[in-house]
Amino acid sequence: MIAIDRLIDKIVETKNPTVVGLDPRMDYIPADIVKDVQDRYGRTAIALKYALLAYNKGIIDAVCDIVPAVKPQIAFYEQYGVEGVDAYFQTVEYAKSKGLVVIGDIKRSDIASTAEAYSDAHIGQSDVFGEKMTFSHTDFITVNPFLGADSIEPFLKNCKEYDKGLFILVKTSNKGSGDFQDLIVDGRPLYEICGEYVEKWGAELIGKHGYSSIGAVAGATHPAVAARLRALMPKTFFLVPGYGAQGGSAADIAVSFDKNGLGAIVNNSRGIIAAYKTEKYSGMTYAEAARAAALDMKSDLNSVL
Amino acid sequence: MIAIDRLIDKIVETKNPTVVGLDPRMDYIPADIVKDVQDRYGRTAIALKYALLAYNKGIIDAVCDIVPAVKPQIAFYEQYGVEGVDAYFQTVEYAKSKGLVVIGDIKRSDIASTAEAYSDAHIGQSDVFGEKMTFSHTDFITVNPFLGADSIEPFLKNCKEYDKGLFILVKTSNKGSGDFQDLIVDGRPLYEICGEYVEKWGAELIGKHGYSSIGAVAGATHPAVAARLRALMPKTFFLVPGYGAQGGSAADIAVSFDKNGLGAIVNNSRGIIAAYKTEKYSGMTYAEAARAAALDMKSDLNSVL
Repeated sequence: MIAIDRLIDKIVETKNPTVVGLDPRMDYIPADIVKDVQDRYGRTAIALKYALLAYNKGIIDAVCDIVPAVKPQIAFYEQYGVEGVDAYFQTVEYAKSKGLVVIGDIKRSDIASTAEAYSDAHIGQSDVFGEKMTFSHTDFITVNPFLGADSIEPFLKNCKEYDKGLFILVKTSNKGSGDFQDLIVDGRPLYEICGEYVEKWGAELIGKHGYSSIGAVAGATHPAVAARLRALMPKTFFLVPGYGAQGGSAADIAVSFDKNGLGAIVNNSRGIIAAYKTEKYSGMTYAEAARAAALDMKSDLNSVL
Repeated sequence: MIAIDRLIDKIVETKNPTVVGLDPRMDYIPADIVKDVQDRYGRTAIALKYALLAYNKGIIDAVCDIVPAVKPQIAFYEQYGVEGVDAYFQTVEYAKSKGLVVIGDIKRSDIASTAEAYSDAHIGQSDVFGEKMTFSHTDFITVNPFLGADSIEPFLKNCKEYDKGLFILVKTSNKGSGDFQDLIVDGRPLYEICGEYVEKWGAELIGKHGYSSIGAVAGATHPAVAARLRALMPKTFFLVPGYGAQGGSAADIAVSFDKNGLGAIVNNSRGIIAAYKTEKYSGMTYAEAARAAALDMKSDLNSVL
């Protein structure tokens, strides 16, 4: 089954267009996990790897029946070197084993011959002494389009070959996104031109729900832009960052969806994985709080869809 | 000493503005290395890690006294998962131990809070249970500016704090680079606007040679563009991909340099690291051929400077 159908089927099944961002920070990890890994491995990067993994597994176990997908952000693992990267790949593996769709938030990009290596690493297979090996089981990855169409080709190729998907940056959620993405070209902002490319790139990978496995990142912090992109890109599924901590509300996000309540999945990272640190969920374990916050977000989103 | 001065001093010392791209492909690795690692580790990713490392060490040993810098492209390591990433970090470490300036070609980018994690990973330090640890010793990294000024800030911060540098994508060497980078905004191509940002971001990090530690990637396959950017960005050092295999000649590249023969460093990957596979260097070992090709490139570049 093509990637976008796997994702939309899970959204329909859970009635919840939420993706849980697995962006662990050291100060989110509960003391009992920290103590356990330090007892075994000291204050080392290896201990931290096991702490990240234990923490993520707790979150995944707590939400895997109520959300369709998780999105580990590789930077939060890469920052701990090779042990951190190992935690990323093992997190992907564990989330897949629990039936979740996994979006690897890696925002890679390079010229075609190099992009091919990234594509094989994350949504394909690499040749190791003549044998094909899979190093990551992510269903989707995020990619940056700044290098142009030929830099996207190796990713599209693997999406077709391995039933994978992309979310290509069109309009990011940060304030500075306007510096380049909003520049006016022939009377239109760059993000619209970029959006048209994405819609075109996705034309060959459209699934049973009418959406393509080639999606777009369109930030919740710019509702007017999202509404315009929704109209301009009818076959493109949106990954929407910026809900909650970054300031986007459910009402801001409603414009990213179609009239059937499909068309987008909304990310929430610290609002779920570190919910136990907020007053609203105090007294709960981090896993209980993550589940409660994910259910609250589900209600919040469904109230506007 | 700030990063750009370390680089330019080495260029002046070696009289060679060449950076050797360490982009190993499995079919470049000589049979004796392959046999040795397979005897020890079988046909596994771990064996491949040791093969990549042995191969890179051979190249580094052969060129470390005649070139100023090496540029490992992380995608060619990441494609082999965590073992590959380990080979990347160990390659960086080994090149540093041989006195080379190391440019990590990682082309990372994300919103500020995430970019901070990438920045700490590659040109800074990460907090592991209260202790600061360094996971990569790269002097420079490449970054993608598509997300705007605030996404570059965490990298600039670490450049100041840890004497590191950046090469920010302005005009890439691939054919498709024009799809977005050449679009006309207010009568000017986007790469010029991008170039102006880079020149501005680098203003606080200018070294004794008049260049900033915040450099730009400007491809050799577009000589007219490079000439224009050289004029527009007098304080910005250029990393020039596209020489050799990608089609750029020394004459194409001359425009990227200033009247003193400084201002740019030219990358060559397979033309050096896989030189032994070409007729010109046949009969040599891969390391001998790499050294001969690097010396030939030095002559070629100096003939036009």
